[in-house]
Amino acid sequence: MPSIFGSFVMRADVELVFDVPRLEEKLIIEALRRLGLRLKLTNIKYSPLSWDEAPAQISLIRTISMLRAAYSASVREAAGVRTINSSEAILISGDKILALSSLKRAGIRFPKSVVALDEEAAEKAGEAMGFPLVDKPPIGSWGRLVTLVQDMRMLRSVIEHRQFYQSQALRTHILQRYVRAGNSDLRILVLGGEVLGAIHRIAMNGDWRSNVARGGVVKRAELNPELEELALKASSAIRGEFIGIDVFEENGEYLVNEVNGVPEFKGFMEATGIDVPKILAEYVKRLLRR
Amino acid sequence: MPSIFGSFVMRADVELVFDVPRLEEKLIIEALRRLGLRLKLTNIKYSPLSWDEAPAQISLIRTISMLRAAYSASVREAAGVRTINSSEAILISGDKILALSSLKRAGIRFPKSVVALDEEAAEKAGEAMGFPLVDKPPIGSWGRLVTLVQDMRMLRSVIEHRQFYQSQALRTHILQRYVRAGNSDLRILVLGGEVLGAIHRIAMNGDWRSNVARGGVVKRAELNPELEELALKASSAIRGEFIGIDVFEENGEYLVNEVNGVPEFKGFMEATGIDVPKILAEYVKRLLRR
Amino acid sequence: MPSIFGSFVMRADVELVFDVPRLEEKLIIEALRRLGLRLKLTNIKYSPLSWDEAPAQISLIRTISMLRAAYSASVREAAGVRTINSSEAILISGDKILALSSLKRAGIRFPKSVVALDEEAAEKAGEAMGFPLVDKPPIGSWGRLVTLVQDMRMLRSVIEHRQFYQSQALRTHILQRYVRAGNSDLRILVLGGEVLGAIHRIAMNGDWRSNVARGGVVKRAELNPELEELALKASSAIRGEFIGIDVFEENGEYLVNEVNGVPEFKGFMEATGIDVPKILAEYVKRLLRR
Amino acid sequence: MPSIFGSFVMRADVELVFDVPRLEEKLIIEALRRLGLRLKLTNIKYSPLSWDEAPAQISLIRTISMLRAAYSASVREAAGVRTINSSEAILISGDKILALSSLKRAGIRFPKSVVALDEEAAEKAGEAMGFPLVDKPPIGSWGRLVTLVQDMRMLRSVIEHRQFYQSQALRTHILQRYVRAGNSDLRILVLGGEVLGAIHRIAMNGDWRSNVARGGVVKRAELNPELEELALKASSAIRGEFIGIDVFEENGEYLVNEVNGVPEFKGFMEATGIDVPKILAEYVKRLLRR
Repeated sequence: MPSIFGSFVMRADVELVFDVPRLEEKLIIEALRRLGLRLKLTNIKYSPLSWDEAPAQISLIRTISMLRAAYSASVREAAGVRTINSSEAILISGDKILALSSLKRAGIRFPKSVVALDEEAAEKAGEAMGFPLVDKPPIGSWGRLVTLVQDMRMLRSVIEHRQFYQSQALRTHILQRYVRAGNSDLRILVLGGEVLGAIHRIAMNGDWRSNVARGGVVKRAELNPELEELALKASSAIRGEFIGIDVFEENGEYLVNEVNGVPEFKGFMEATGIDVPKILAEYVKRLLRR
Repeated sequence: MPSIFGSFVMRADVELVFDVPRLEEKLIIEALRRLGLRLKLTNIKYSPLSWDEAPAQISLIRTISMLRAAYSASVREAAGVRTINSSEAILISGDKILALSSLKRAGIRFPKSVVALDEEAAEKAGEAMGFPLVDKPPIGSWGRLVTLVQDMRMLRSVIEHRQFYQSQALRTHILQRYVRAGNSDLRILVLGGEVLGAIHRIAMNGDWRSNVARGGVVKRAELNPELEELALKASSAIRGEFIGIDVFEENGEYLVNEVNGVPEFKGFMEATGIDVPKILAEYVKRLLRR
Repeated sequence: MPSIFGSFVMRADVELVFDVPRLEEKLIIEALRRLGLRLKLTNIKYSPLSWDEAPAQISLIRTISMLRAAYSASVREAAGVRTINSSEAILISGDKILALSSLKRAGIRFPKSVVALDEEAAEKAGEAMGFPLVDKPPIGSWGRLVTLVQDMRMLRSVIEHRQFYQSQALRTHILQRYVRAGNSDLRILVLGGEVLGAIHRIAMNGDWRSNVARGGVVKRAELNPELEELALKASSAIRGEFIGIDVFEENGEYLVNEVNGVPEFKGFMEATGIDVPKILAEYVKRLLRR
Repeated sequence: MPSIFGSFVMRADVELVFDVPRLEEKLIIEALRRLGLRLKLTNIKYSPLSWDEAPAQISLIRTISMLRAAYSASVREAAGVRTINSSEAILISGDKILALSSLKRAGIRFPKSVVALDEEAAEKAGEAMGFPLVDKPPIGSWGRLVTLVQDMRMLRSVIEHRQFYQSQALRTHILQRYVRAGNSDLRILVLGGEVLGAIHRIAMNGDWRSNVARGGVVKRAELNPELEELALKASSAIRGEFIGIDVFEENGEYLVNEVNGVPEFKGFMEATGIDVPKILAEYVKRLLRR
């Protein structure tokens, strides 16, 4: 807890770092205030970030852009602030290549994948894997540019379109075996080493991607010890604290698809009735007590 | 050393991962071959990378693009290969925000800087810091887009121009106090916890940036214990193994400006006569013996 | 007027082609309806355009994007529709290089300018012209990327920033003598060979550009025969029908700065009290009678 | 011919405006010199263009970038130079929407097409047309981004990928009926109202596009009066002087596919033995005599 002496006095308990306040951020603010925590709101659209400023003990990093989240966490950490999530967890979960590497090192299964860093490598990877396959860039949310590729001609079109992007990451390809279960998945929320719950997400509107932002429908899912263990292991592999884990079930086996370091949880709350902002705020309060 | 039994047989000692082979890469290949090491060349333009392949004990990561280097290192590491540098060191040194955060945590001094993640934040930062200042995006080599900004009108122009980039990183601003010594700097090369040497780089051709790629002139520089310690500390702060450290000298004080995780060393060799590829190859060979 | 026989029956009198309906478009719709004209609304966000469809006798082209306006006009014209403006006028006025060429051919004066199609050409042009100068790309509205350049270092920064744009047009430079009167200008509206009126626009908010979209302040301006003749000549030079002409006054001389083929007129109406939508609707109705 | 008096003296007969000199440009230069014409070479990478300079009587516009060609022609024309092609012909032929509009107005047949200026419009157009169809942006050479789309899912992928381009033109879709003959076409060269010859181009290397730049194979094609008339009519429709016309043959009928205002002719020369640069140089010389 902040000292009542010195420059420390004005430091808040918790800082919320955001850019566009979604419903999630508004609910987090309410929950933190309800617990009496002193809150500092930092909208990075208007506030520069300095390596010399530690405006709170803990910073909740909630910008929509993953890179902005990683930068915010990195600067705050260097100034001595504990961030949720850590810059490392945000960076890893915000990049599907880094994330898969972390899962691999931890022995966690995911759909067979290769990385192609240029056009010809991507064509070769497609030839070797066969079709259909899923092609996606390492960055991007809500299933953006994730493509179900039916044949080599379509793969060539995807490769050609991506070559004109300025961003090196968007010119990079992850080619992945298409998991038939891929138009529905499980999203599990983990906080501080505990599983909060899980939902099913099912693709709708003629899209094969199950992202809620694409109109995917959600409903509460049952957990089991295997799933819980997998979620905790995945969360730990990317060194995450508040993490969403996306899991495919295929022939009775679980495969981790993606991890999310700034998880959205509106659909999760609706489907499960779990009060995520309250649990998050209480978790933060417990950390402050230490 | 690879076993003569099992699938291990075909594994190389060292893999060189590259995209465009510069003089540096050609010299490294020669030096490795001269030491009798079994070498695997992987041009990521043509070869997909798999998390299931470990084609060598050690991978030297030498792509021009920092992101490609980081991805290559990440996939290889996850497959059990030791990479030089580690994906972590490449990621951190390839992003000036992450690098400054690491330096800050290690107590290493750098020119006063703030991060602005959006337009208005950048204007505010400029007002607070005053002019001249240096504005740069967190990614990019050879001084690309690093701008000496004279006044608010020029800063607004820089901000406006950057807003139209697709890449979030290129829309991000590091605003930094202009160090008068900024048109000359020291580049120190570190390998495996030892300092190889140092050069002065002096800006030329009417450019204020000292990058060799911009025509900067180089000459051998003298080291001293303070500089050596700083370089090793900086290299260690970003968890680097083969690293270039750029240092400003101002009023007798040293300030780290940037770090480089895939260092170019052609100019360094010319100015110092130090045979970097040979030393690097011998270093790699020693690692293999273990 | 449409015949009551044949396929002609369903054809509207007037089509409004738009993307984002601004106040201007809403007022035009009201004015056209008030005159009893049969109106077809085409939002190009949702409606493909076919070369086989002529949904009205006259199409008013009012998309925000100049290129979308030009494409819409081009397709409609080819199907036999009269468009206001013509695709030619929209294309020319939407591109500052084409516009200046048209003005030049018509003997109309504008601030001394050169075109640089690449980096080195732009540097040379800057050296030859001296500073301050204005640098702008040929496309873009509301003063976007129009930069007052103070010296060669700033010009180099502008050139470097622009080189990373995907759009060839945005990598193109018009370098123009800076007209001291440049932070205020006259905007004259022309319709069908007649001058509707004029306003002064004065730069505000610390910006030197007088665009209304940048907070520029407007007030009614007096016309004189010289100004009227210049506006009509400029409008005719670009083959325009409903056109905004921007004019600098310098030492008692008039210089045309830009022309606009899809003119905004909200600020014009407020400052002059002239009911532009009503006059436009009546003009359209007169054309239909013929 | 230039007068021997006044400032006219130094003016060249012909200016070649280029950026990257291909074989075509080198051959043109030789041919012009062989005829004794005074030649001015203008590389727009290094030379700014001024509306006050007319360095030659005739400018041959041969930049690779269509937009640079259009700008060069526009500035030179305004200074009183005759350009081949005119800026109008280059602009129209360089943009497939403007080109099809011109063909339509001239009553020339092309594969049924619609224009979609935004995402939803493109989806609707795809639904209405059915599959397979061809989707292409209005700008771009060598078949770039021209995609054979098999079904709605693939169309959605193309639309999504294009939405992230900065260029409005690249976000624009021409959706076109797929002509079965589409992997082979005729390229006819027209100069000054006369047909020079024709070649067949046949797609190779697994690509369905017949562009020579994509490895398409060429051979001499026979002309007939219908084809000749079509080529001249198309060339005239876009107001071209030296133009390439691409034609599909389907069930005995000819359909114009594209027109080219800065035609490449290396493959044409090889297949037909026709000395295009010589004929072009002689044509230019005849124009000068007048």
